[in-house]
Amino acid sequence: MTESRQIHLVRRPRGVPVAEDFAVVPVATPDAGAGEVQLQTLLMSVDPYMRPRLDADQPLDVALLGGGIARVVQSRHDGFREGDLVRHMAGMRERFVSDGRGLTPLKVDPDLPLSVYMHALGGTGLTAYGGLLEVGALKDGEQVFVSTAGGAVGSVVAQIAKLKGCYVVGTTGSDEKAAWLRDVAGLDAVINYKSGPLAPALKAVTPKGIDVYFENVGGAHLDAALARMNVRGRIPVCGMISTYNGDREGVRNLSNLIYSRIRMEGFVASDFGHLRERFEADVTAWLKAGQIKYQETILDGFERAPEGLIGLFEGRNAGKMLIRVAA
Amino acid sequence: MTESRQIHLVRRPRGVPVAEDFAVVPVATPDAGAGEVQLQTLLMSVDPYMRPRLDADQPLDVALLGGGIARVVQSRHDGFREGDLVRHMAGMRERFVSDGRGLTPLKVDPDLPLSVYMHALGGTGLTAYGGLLEVGALKDGEQVFVSTAGGAVGSVVAQIAKLKGCYVVGTTGSDEKAAWLRDVAGLDAVINYKSGPLAPALKAVTPKGIDVYFENVGGAHLDAALARMNVRGRIPVCGMISTYNGDREGVRNLSNLIYSRIRMEGFVASDFGHLRERFEADVTAWLKAGQIKYQETILDGFERAPEGLIGLFEGRNAGKMLIRVAA
Repeated sequence: MTESRQIHLVRRPRGVPVAEDFAVVPVATPDAGAGEVQLQTLLMSVDPYMRPRLDADQPLDVALLGGGIARVVQSRHDGFREGDLVRHMAGMRERFVSDGRGLTPLKVDPDLPLSVYMHALGGTGLTAYGGLLEVGALKDGEQVFVSTAGGAVGSVVAQIAKLKGCYVVGTTGSDEKAAWLRDVAGLDAVINYKSGPLAPALKAVTPKGIDVYFENVGGAHLDAALARMNVRGRIPVCGMISTYNGDREGVRNLSNLIYSRIRMEGFVASDFGHLRERFEADVTAWLKAGQIKYQETILDGFERAPEGLIGLFEGRNAGKMLIRVAA
Repeated sequence: MTESRQIHLVRRPRGVPVAEDFAVVPVATPDAGAGEVQLQTLLMSVDPYMRPRLDADQPLDVALLGGGIARVVQSRHDGFREGDLVRHMAGMRERFVSDGRGLTPLKVDPDLPLSVYMHALGGTGLTAYGGLLEVGALKDGEQVFVSTAGGAVGSVVAQIAKLKGCYVVGTTGSDEKAAWLRDVAGLDAVINYKSGPLAPALKAVTPKGIDVYFENVGGAHLDAALARMNVRGRIPVCGMISTYNGDREGVRNLSNLIYSRIRMEGFVASDFGHLRERFEADVTAWLKAGQIKYQETILDGFERAPEGLIGLFEGRNAGKMLIRVAA
């Protein structure tokens, strides 16, 4: 028996979540029984996709949905040894017991920090890779627009597109993030969407239109992109963060889909299991060669998970927002 | 030399077009020269797709865009004989001279009226066929929702889906059209969208959700459909008539694309040249077997083309709106 903690949703948020919507709840974690392991979470992820689920399938007063990397600290299971690292989607639990289902063994490259397995080599990286290359059907040298290019998914999308010889423009919400995208990630143009109307700014930096718009925002971003899409353009729809807190800005330019024969298509990372091996090989190589750069915003302390989640909607993350629970 | 007429756009419409935006202009049509034919238009089509083009690529004071069926009345061209029927997209001209480019010889089935070659066996039929079966990737037995199901395209879409064993619901704007769709075309459920809020009405008649939404309307129709789409649903985007006259109702439910992995894709009839042979064989057989029913609204007189076009936006057509110019 070990004392540990969980993060619970204790009431449904109205608009942007606030601290009082969550609670850090002490729980007693039993020892591993026969055929079980006990796990200690090391890193947890907070992601925009969680927000709509707080209105929907996330129950109150149980561990908040989410995933992380954990270490096996007790094993009475033939498939795991103490010290093994695993990925899990068991929710926000500091420690927990599992029969092994839903745990994915994690082999890490000694030249890469563990945290990259939570972003560029984790679900967000796979989302970027599959969304851009498979759903977006990117061709080398195309014109690409990435929204929230400073975020965990967007920054990987933008850099993969650059590696494929594309002209890449991105939007982000601060001059500091814009400078990183331009100077470090190597984008061709970056717009701080808070500094003026988006549509004319996007037009100015897309003289050859847009072949692929990687959609993370919705609303005015989508309208601005629709006005610039080339014939047979693709819009892989990864997220629509502008709509998640209830402010559903209407989209008005959808009739552009017709004459330009544009395809918009939604997806989630779990669609891309068949790509995982190629993704891991490609992105590991790109990271080790310094061809994909990343930023992380790491909050130390299990109890800071709600702060991290809320911070996503305030743009407080540069790159991936992570919670470090233990080393 | 023959006296004839053209329809011109004489000013850009504001919102719904009015009669004063158009003029019937007398012109002198020369005789066919060497290598030319003179044609007499028999039937002309007016279609919703024309409206956005009145704001865009339609020049003022020349023949209005559009197409029809014409008869060769003089021929000095080896490829055409007097009396031959052709399809053309030469604009709204009562008579005109052509070197043959852009004319498509028309072979008619003696058991079918000429007018069906302007709808079920014309561009609107091909739009319906390709949009539903190719872009919509319809599978037998699926759940289908068709907007403007009483229109020229929608009524063919709905009946092809019924022939494929699907459950089919449609919307239309009058009880009379709704009765035709239910009683003659055999739809499973029909909503008069003017008689109350659409979203709850659509929910009530789609207990198994929607696999394919054939989009002709946009705005509130699209939002209502998005709320009912099944996982891996498809939305072939044929038109967005609710937006064409400037009232661009914002669409708010697009984030449903993500988790349900919905594909929305625009298209135009000219994408479907590779389907034409199969389309003509299938639809001819279905029409002759009485398996596809149709309605026509035929206005007699070349000069009534503007009235016909304006009438589309007032829902004055049951099925295809045509202008009969000559017999």
